[in-house]
Amino acid sequence: MNSQYEDVLRVLEDCVKACNQCFDACLKEEDVKMMANCIRLDRECADSCSYAIQAITRESPFTAQILKLCADICEKCAEECAKHDHDHCQKCAEACRKCAQACRSAA
Amino acid sequence: MNSQYEDVLRVLEDCVKACNQCFDACLKEEDVKMMANCIRLDRECADSCSYAIQAITRESPFTAQILKLCADICEKCAEECAKHDHDHCQKCAEACRKCAQACRSAA
Amino acid sequence: MNSQYEDVLRVLEDCVKACNQCFDACLKEEDVKMMANCIRLDRECADSCSYAIQAITRESPFTAQILKLCADICEKCAEECAKHDHDHCQKCAEACRKCAQACRSAA
Amino acid sequence: MNSQYEDVLRVLEDCVKACNQCFDACLKEEDVKMMANCIRLDRECADSCSYAIQAITRESPFTAQILKLCADICEKCAEECAKHDHDHCQKCAEACRKCAQACRSAA
Repeated sequence: MNSQYEDVLRVLEDCVKACNQCFDACLKEEDVKMMANCIRLDRECADSCSYAIQAITRESPFTAQILKLCADICEKCAEECAKHDHDHCQKCAEACRKCAQACRSAA
Repeated sequence: MNSQYEDVLRVLEDCVKACNQCFDACLKEEDVKMMANCIRLDRECADSCSYAIQAITRESPFTAQILKLCADICEKCAEECAKHDHDHCQKCAEACRKCAQACRSAA
Repeated sequence: MNSQYEDVLRVLEDCVKACNQCFDACLKEEDVKMMANCIRLDRECADSCSYAIQAITRESPFTAQILKLCADICEKCAEECAKHDHDHCQKCAEACRKCAQACRSAA
Repeated sequence: MNSQYEDVLRVLEDCVKACNQCFDACLKEEDVKMMANCIRLDRECADSCSYAIQAITRESPFTAQILKLCADICEKCAEECAKHDHDHCQKCAEACRKCAQACRSAA
């Protein structure tokens, strides 16, 4: 496997986890309405990272493009999560920022 | 393609659409908190139907099992959506019930 | 749902089916080796179309980008399938070409 | 996150990787025909593990059922891969066996 892509794998896996845990936790918050955009972007981001993991591991000829898309989505999710003080949002913002950078530099 | 599985394809496609439209609409409702479980199950159901579509069309050796799982998830999503008066929830409940039956009888 | 995106839905659904049926049929061919790239691209294309369907139906803010990526993948799959005389390859090439155009003009 | 499910995450991630690397490597083998069933099951297994990862991380109410399905698929993939001497097949068989056990005991 392409080693530049290999490096981004664990970061993507952590990002899937952070986004989905944030999705779940947001749905359990008192003020769910305030979290609506976060919930939406968590799903978008978890799905794009999951797709990128599949692409990298199967040596997809489209990996670079998929990682660029994934970086864009991670950035938007990071921006939204960063607005909220909840622990799960702050963790998710951090995971998404890290993932956006890793995808961008690997692509 | 196995014709008993072929019949369930359009129903699954309609269910992905109904669940995702309900997911989107729930996130835009005034009272998002009341819709939290619906949002969660809409995602679960859209994803399981999407997985079932892939299984059927590629002649997966696990199609019957995947359809059984999908039927279970559709039923739970239908139950939850049926509790809410919103048009998108009622439509989704109907699509999920139809899909649960189709998956169950094809499996 | 955005009506320009709505129009592309059925085309994407047909493309998932054509690609996965081609994937399955290629694996059953006498000369599987000749079909290796077709098998690979069928999977890529089915997965990107499936991802695009999810994006469209849940009103993803990234739908345009996802459809552009999907169009690129559909085109490569169409090119490869067009090289082979098998019925399933010719059908798949046609479905992919149609899907590439629909994704491109909707994006 | 449920700690019994947490433990199975890395195993699932490794299995996605092993299956997809085996899928890619099988398509590059001299005798692709001999690998046809392996190629098919690698895809099935990577997809079910990817689905299980999403389920676990978002606290899906269907996680136990999804892990049972995943265990069944991992076992079939392990059986097929074990028949072939290629390094990637042997590695994949090992990853699938480990994953089947982890999914079974977590479910």
